[in-house]
Amino acid sequence: MVRADTVHTVAELARRCGAKLQGGGKAEISAIAPLDQAEPGAISFLNDAKYRQHLQDTRASAVILHETDAALCPVDALVTDEPYLVYARVAALLFPDSVVEGGRDASARISERAEVHPSAWIGPQAVIEPGARIGERVFIGPGCVIGADCVVGDDSRLVATVTLCRGTQLGRRNLIHPGAVIGSDGFGLANDSGRWIKVPQLGCVRLGDDVEVGANTTIDRGAIGDTVIADGVKLDNQIQVAHNVCIGEHTAIAGCVGIAGSTRIGRHCTVGGGVGISGHLTIGDDVHFTGQTLVTRSITEPGSYSGNLPVMPSRKWRRAVVLIRRLDGMMQRLLALEKRLSNEQDRRPKEAD
Amino acid sequence: MVRADTVHTVAELARRCGAKLQGGGKAEISAIAPLDQAEPGAISFLNDAKYRQHLQDTRASAVILHETDAALCPVDALVTDEPYLVYARVAALLFPDSVVEGGRDASARISERAEVHPSAWIGPQAVIEPGARIGERVFIGPGCVIGADCVVGDDSRLVATVTLCRGTQLGRRNLIHPGAVIGSDGFGLANDSGRWIKVPQLGCVRLGDDVEVGANTTIDRGAIGDTVIADGVKLDNQIQVAHNVCIGEHTAIAGCVGIAGSTRIGRHCTVGGGVGISGHLTIGDDVHFTGQTLVTRSITEPGSYSGNLPVMPSRKWRRAVVLIRRLDGMMQRLLALEKRLSNEQDRRPKEAD
Amino acid sequence: MVRADTVHTVAELARRCGAKLQGGGKAEISAIAPLDQAEPGAISFLNDAKYRQHLQDTRASAVILHETDAALCPVDALVTDEPYLVYARVAALLFPDSVVEGGRDASARISERAEVHPSAWIGPQAVIEPGARIGERVFIGPGCVIGADCVVGDDSRLVATVTLCRGTQLGRRNLIHPGAVIGSDGFGLANDSGRWIKVPQLGCVRLGDDVEVGANTTIDRGAIGDTVIADGVKLDNQIQVAHNVCIGEHTAIAGCVGIAGSTRIGRHCTVGGGVGISGHLTIGDDVHFTGQTLVTRSITEPGSYSGNLPVMPSRKWRRAVVLIRRLDGMMQRLLALEKRLSNEQDRRPKEAD
Repeated sequence: MVRADTVHTVAELARRCGAKLQGGGKAEISAIAPLDQAEPGAISFLNDAKYRQHLQDTRASAVILHETDAALCPVDALVTDEPYLVYARVAALLFPDSVVEGGRDASARISERAEVHPSAWIGPQAVIEPGARIGERVFIGPGCVIGADCVVGDDSRLVATVTLCRGTQLGRRNLIHPGAVIGSDGFGLANDSGRWIKVPQLGCVRLGDDVEVGANTTIDRGAIGDTVIADGVKLDNQIQVAHNVCIGEHTAIAGCVGIAGSTRIGRHCTVGGGVGISGHLTIGDDVHFTGQTLVTRSITEPGSYSGNLPVMPSRKWRRAVVLIRRLDGMMQRLLALEKRLSNEQDRRPKEAD
Repeated sequence: MVRADTVHTVAELARRCGAKLQGGGKAEISAIAPLDQAEPGAISFLNDAKYRQHLQDTRASAVILHETDAALCPVDALVTDEPYLVYARVAALLFPDSVVEGGRDASARISERAEVHPSAWIGPQAVIEPGARIGERVFIGPGCVIGADCVVGDDSRLVATVTLCRGTQLGRRNLIHPGAVIGSDGFGLANDSGRWIKVPQLGCVRLGDDVEVGANTTIDRGAIGDTVIADGVKLDNQIQVAHNVCIGEHTAIAGCVGIAGSTRIGRHCTVGGGVGISGHLTIGDDVHFTGQTLVTRSITEPGSYSGNLPVMPSRKWRRAVVLIRRLDGMMQRLLALEKRLSNEQDRRPKEAD
Repeated sequence: MVRADTVHTVAELARRCGAKLQGGGKAEISAIAPLDQAEPGAISFLNDAKYRQHLQDTRASAVILHETDAALCPVDALVTDEPYLVYARVAALLFPDSVVEGGRDASARISERAEVHPSAWIGPQAVIEPGARIGERVFIGPGCVIGADCVVGDDSRLVATVTLCRGTQLGRRNLIHPGAVIGSDGFGLANDSGRWIKVPQLGCVRLGDDVEVGANTTIDRGAIGDTVIADGVKLDNQIQVAHNVCIGEHTAIAGCVGIAGSTRIGRHCTVGGGVGISGHLTIGDDVHFTGQTLVTRSITEPGSYSGNLPVMPSRKWRRAVVLIRRLDGMMQRLLALEKRLSNEQDRRPKEAD
């Protein structure tokens, strides 16, 4: 059970979060908890059939649930077609973002040639380099490094130890988690008789509004043009976004994904964990990749795409691998059989047909 | 050859590390080296048959080895069924952890509302936020950020540039490597007509005793309950552990693994490098995954599991891929052949049978 | 269009970058831009047939291109067999590395027992520990941590928030991007009746000259000997290099690759994104792995190697996966068919042959 920072009645939560109220709605909600751990004063939610067993005995004061479960609910309910969305809204009301108090920690190192809005907070051991502009109510957490000429839009929050390299531009309401590196050099190399020559990386990284970037995710600057992450894009942890990638509005990408250079990903896509996307591809809108798929061609048709072996007991897997290696042989044998059978038919006395 | 911090006789090492002494045991050991690079005064070990060739000519003063190799050893030997384990013990004796000297670097930024035990060391440019509690003999290395209300158990060591987000709890004797981020927000999003709404992440991360976390590994806080890493778990570098994952006692996970939300992994499991594990799964005790397997279903039976294509010359691989795409066609042709053959048999004059 | 830091005539660029000049060569070049975005004063390049359409209408003052495109070029041209390489040289001339000004930020924490060359720059909030040696014209960016006894060779640049653990040695002209961790402990564990015992990691990491290490890449120290990255190796972001790995000269490795312990990779290799390489393997010179391949055996023959399923619509993929699981059954049926057909032939009346 997690104690909330604010208190609301059930009725008020229903009204403000777009759900239908079932029951009196007078109880005051001051906590959130799973169905089976809730105490009076808590709100809970039911979004997955496998937790339905806990509904009848819940001690929560209210439950967010779907119409189909409403009849079984022993307490007040917030009834909705989208319990998880309503839960997100309720949680945001009960746990509002903390208000940023303007100021700067004495240990922060802020260039005199940086512009920091007085309503922004610059945390301990942070570094703000010359030419950087930090907007209103921005939170720069401990240990962050904001490179020269970076822009951080209003109401953005860099939790801690975020590194923005020279010239990176963040939009408004960005949320950047620790260890993220934005604006590092792209991997641009030209081969000179066996030695690699570095290709200067001259572009920048631009993030739109409402972008979230996960812990230890890296986004490289463009080689000539910019790497662009559009409004509402959500990136999980440990994602690698190479130079000149463009990611369209409201696309969500799970952890450990790698996207190679100059690939364009459309809007409203979802990319499962561990997916790899080759360079110079175009992925259309509403394309969805399941986990660990390797994407080596452009995809224009909306839909779900996959590509990976299923998990098997290692013994069976070793056998499958042997057979995959031999697929060519199997195909040859199949063709030989077909031919042999046809030859036989041809040779067989006509009367048998 | 690596010079040790302490000196022990061969006999003493045998006795304290649980091995049987073969030979006089009087030599003093003050270094560790591979068989073929050792000089007198060094101890070496033989754990892999392919290095056996170096045994007869070794200049080491002692060798840790298996009974089966003991007869061939030209010098003193520590004989054991588990040479690698005995080596680990010997190395720990010869290279003891450095003793932590209590104190704080002048550049560390420590909140007055944090509790730091006087025997703990807080390194240069570190940040300790309000409400944090730092236990006895803890080492907080340079550039670490310890968020508000974190707890770091006795004898834990954060090597450098570790970020613990608000409320993270480390047990005793934890060892956390640089760049690790523990307690970052989970990737919790609800879709609101095409836009992603953030679901507040209200839980924390709790690590048991004797946990090791590798460089640049990330462990997200729970959405409501906590993310839990049990006693003795060892995590390599660049692992991503999502919200509400639970990892059981003494499970070891190699680098670049991603574990999606709410999955439970049992005790004494091993997970190979690059494995991806989907969300909401239950993996039992003593389950072992080989490298880069994608785990998309729960596994209750102990054993070894795999799933990946073998490496092949690209030309053969392209052919295999074509055939994998055509497997359905192959199956159809196989069925057609079977049917055709059966029909023929039926049609064939009876006397031929 | 990116404004250059310096100005050169077209003729001078051709001469200094090894290209043949076509046209007068008098125009002054002060910017770089893609063909279709260039303005007068900019140089552009054509390296990929799909951008050839933009050549005839380009407003660039000069274009770097291949002989075969030279006739179509409406403006001055730098003609070469390797347009991308010449572009790299041109860009390096127009955007020279900034000159490092010696000094130290007041907030840097530098041990009195470290040796820092006066021509080196130590940035804000950086930490230099005892025994470290920082060479000439080295740039240590904001928030970097240089552990005890590290060596940073002349002209190396650590962009920001780089962590070098104790004893790490960088060569000359290294370029290390933010969040990289070099010299962290290897993942060395011995199992003691179900519990993992740490094996002390006694070696170091040594990088040659002209090595580049990407953002959030991790390189572990050796267990006994060292982890060695040879001259000219280029590592992209989020790569994991385990203990005692050796990487040969001028090998380039793309993002998200994991290399397990003690593996040796040859010279002039390329490794695609997301590749996993098992431990204790030997990969020869001039070996190339395509993206996400899992390498589980040593490879001595130069050439290109692969291993991964192709991306497919999820419905087709599910069918393929079912068939891969059933490959063994398919093989059995194929064998049965072959046998059946042979038996029939044997049994068939001789006159039919």
